[in-house]
Amino acid sequence: MTLANAYVATSASGPLVPGTIERREVGPNDVLIDIAWAGICHSDIHTVRGDWGAVPYPITVGHEIAGFVAAVGSEVTRHKVGDRVGVGCIVDSCRECEHCLAGNEQYCRKGMTGTYNAIDRDGTVTQGGYSTNVVVDERYVLRVPESIPFEKAAPLLCAGITTYSPLRHWNAGPGKKVAVVGLGGLGHMAVKFAHALGAEVTVLSQSLKKREDGLAMGADHYHATSDPDTFAALAGRFDLIVNTVSAGIDISAYLGLVAVDGALVNVGAPSEPLPVNVFSLLLARRSFAGSAIGGISETQEMLDFCAEHGIAPEVEVISADRVNEAWERVLASDVRYRFVIDAATIGA
Amino acid sequence: MTLANAYVATSASGPLVPGTIERREVGPNDVLIDIAWAGICHSDIHTVRGDWGAVPYPITVGHEIAGFVAAVGSEVTRHKVGDRVGVGCIVDSCRECEHCLAGNEQYCRKGMTGTYNAIDRDGTVTQGGYSTNVVVDERYVLRVPESIPFEKAAPLLCAGITTYSPLRHWNAGPGKKVAVVGLGGLGHMAVKFAHALGAEVTVLSQSLKKREDGLAMGADHYHATSDPDTFAALAGRFDLIVNTVSAGIDISAYLGLVAVDGALVNVGAPSEPLPVNVFSLLLARRSFAGSAIGGISETQEMLDFCAEHGIAPEVEVISADRVNEAWERVLASDVRYRFVIDAATIGA
Repeated sequence: MTLANAYVATSASGPLVPGTIERREVGPNDVLIDIAWAGICHSDIHTVRGDWGAVPYPITVGHEIAGFVAAVGSEVTRHKVGDRVGVGCIVDSCRECEHCLAGNEQYCRKGMTGTYNAIDRDGTVTQGGYSTNVVVDERYVLRVPESIPFEKAAPLLCAGITTYSPLRHWNAGPGKKVAVVGLGGLGHMAVKFAHALGAEVTVLSQSLKKREDGLAMGADHYHATSDPDTFAALAGRFDLIVNTVSAGIDISAYLGLVAVDGALVNVGAPSEPLPVNVFSLLLARRSFAGSAIGGISETQEMLDFCAEHGIAPEVEVISADRVNEAWERVLASDVRYRFVIDAATIGA
Repeated sequence: MTLANAYVATSASGPLVPGTIERREVGPNDVLIDIAWAGICHSDIHTVRGDWGAVPYPITVGHEIAGFVAAVGSEVTRHKVGDRVGVGCIVDSCRECEHCLAGNEQYCRKGMTGTYNAIDRDGTVTQGGYSTNVVVDERYVLRVPESIPFEKAAPLLCAGITTYSPLRHWNAGPGKKVAVVGLGGLGHMAVKFAHALGAEVTVLSQSLKKREDGLAMGADHYHATSDPDTFAALAGRFDLIVNTVSAGIDISAYLGLVAVDGALVNVGAPSEPLPVNVFSLLLARRSFAGSAIGGISETQEMLDFCAEHGIAPEVEVISADRVNEAWERVLASDVRYRFVIDAATIGA
C-alpha cells in the first residue's frame, strides 16, 4: 500500500479538501504513475453531488489523468519508467467478453471498472485523479505522444475520446455535414476533431458569445439556438449531430435538423427522460443514439490522431487549492474550455 | 374524367358510405387499374378520424391496392393491359431529388404524394383504394408476381414494405437476433420477413394469446410483455427490435432489450412524444430510430422476395358493406391479421 495526496470529497454538498488516499502495491501488470495533470470533468461534480446515485464518501474523483511512469510491475511490457502516459475513465474490465475483445471495454458485459467510484478487483473503491499518483493495470494506460503539450493531454482522456469516438463511429469525414451542440469542454473537442476529419462543421450554441472561438477551432458555421429561425433554416441539414449538452434540451427540435438516414448522438445524459417526437424519426429514417467514451485502443488512436493533426484542448491550468472555485465555474459554464489541475500543487 | 364507385368518408365520426369519386383521364404515362382487392390499414382510420390533421371530406382512403391493368397511356412501357399490379402508399414524388434518385421516394425532399389525402400534380386531392379503379403514373405501379395469391397481395403494399424495409436497412439476417413488438397486421409480416431473411426471431406481444400463430409464422421465441420478468430476462439481447405498436409504450424499457450497437426502430408513430431514457442509449451505443414504408424499387424487391419465399399475409376477405364493422374490429385489435375488401362488391 502507498499513500497519495489527494483532494477528497467527504459529502455531497461540502467542498473538496486536501487529504490522503491509499493506492495498492504495484502488481506484476501494474504501472505506478506520478500524476502531473488532472482534468476537471462535469461528471466529477455529478458524481460527488450524488446526481447519479449514492457515493461511498470519502471519494476522490478525476478521470482525465496525465503523468509519468514511476514504477512498473515485473510483467509490464507496454510502458517503462519515465514514459508520458495517460489514464481515462476505464481502469479495468472483464477482458473476455465480445465487447472487451472488440476493443469496446466501455460496453463490457460485466461492466467496466471506472477510474473512480467503482468496485475494483480487490474489492476496494477506485479513487480518481485529483491526486499525486495512481496504480493502473498496464492495459488501461495510454501512451501520450511527445508532441501533445502535456498539460493539455489530460482532457483528451475523457472529453477527447467521448467526442472522437462517435465522430468516428458515425463516419464524420469529407462530404459530411456535422453539427456540434454546445461549445464547452466536450463540444470544443468535437469541433476540432470533426474539422480535422474533413467534415463541414456547424456549432449550435445557445448564443453567439463564443462564435469567434468556434470558428478559430475549425467550425465552418455557427448558429444561436436561442434564435428560433435557426431550426427552420437548418431543417434536415446534418448527417450527424453530436449533442454535448447534458441538460434537457428540446431534442425533437434538434432531430428536425438531421438529414435522411442521419443520427443525433448524445454523449451526455440528462437525468430526466427526453420526450422524442417519433414522427420526426419516421419521416427521414433518423436515429437518436447515445455514445459513451470509447475503448482503450480507440483512445490510443485518438491520442495519436491529436499528435498527427496538432489537436489539443483549450485549457485553464489551476493550482489544486482553486478546485472548488473551478467547480463553481464549471457549473456556471464559465470555462474556456477545460480546467486542468497542476498535480504538483496537491498536498504541497 | 372517369368515375369510380367507392366507399367514402364524409366526416371524422360517421361511417363510410357508398358513393362515387372522380379519376383523371389516363395520361401518356398513366395506368388505369381495375381494383380487385383493397387492404385496410390502421392509417386509413387515423386519417379519416382526423388523428393526423385536418381532412378535406369527402375522402376515400386505402393504400393497399391490387388489381388488373385496364388501360395504359401512349408512353407506358412498364405495364400492359391485363397485368396484375399493385399500388401502395406513394403515387408520385419529385423524381429529381437525391432521395427520389436513390429510390427512397418516401423521403422525397418536396414530399411524396400519398395515395390518398394528398395534393396531386393537378391540384386535386388524391383518393385511395376503397374503390373500383384508380389512375396512377406507371413509375409508382408495382408488378405482382403470379405466385402471390392475389387477395393477399394488397397488404404487402403497406404492411409488407413497412416492415421489410427496416429489416433490410438494419441488416436482419443470419446470426442476428430480431424482435418484433406487436403481432398485428404489420407485426405478423415482420415475423415472416425476419424469419425468411435468416434471423432468429422473437415476438414481444402483450400476452401469449397469439403465441401459436407467431411460432407458425416463423418466430423462434414468444414472450409476453405484460410479464415484467420478460424485460429482465431479455436485457441487451436483440440486435434489432422492430416496434409495430403505434400506441405509446414504455420505450425506455424496450431500449433496455437492445444489444450494444443495436437499434429499436419504430414503424408506427404515437401521437404523443415518447420519453426516452438517454442513459439507456449511452450505455450500449443504442439507437432509437424510425422508418416509413419504403421506396418503389424496394417495394418491388419485397414483392419478388415474397414470391420467391412463399410469403403472404394472413387475411380476412370481406365484402365492402362490412367495412365499417371491420374498422371497429381493427380498433379493437380483433383481426388476424389484415382485412382485405373484395373490390368487386364496392357499389355492387
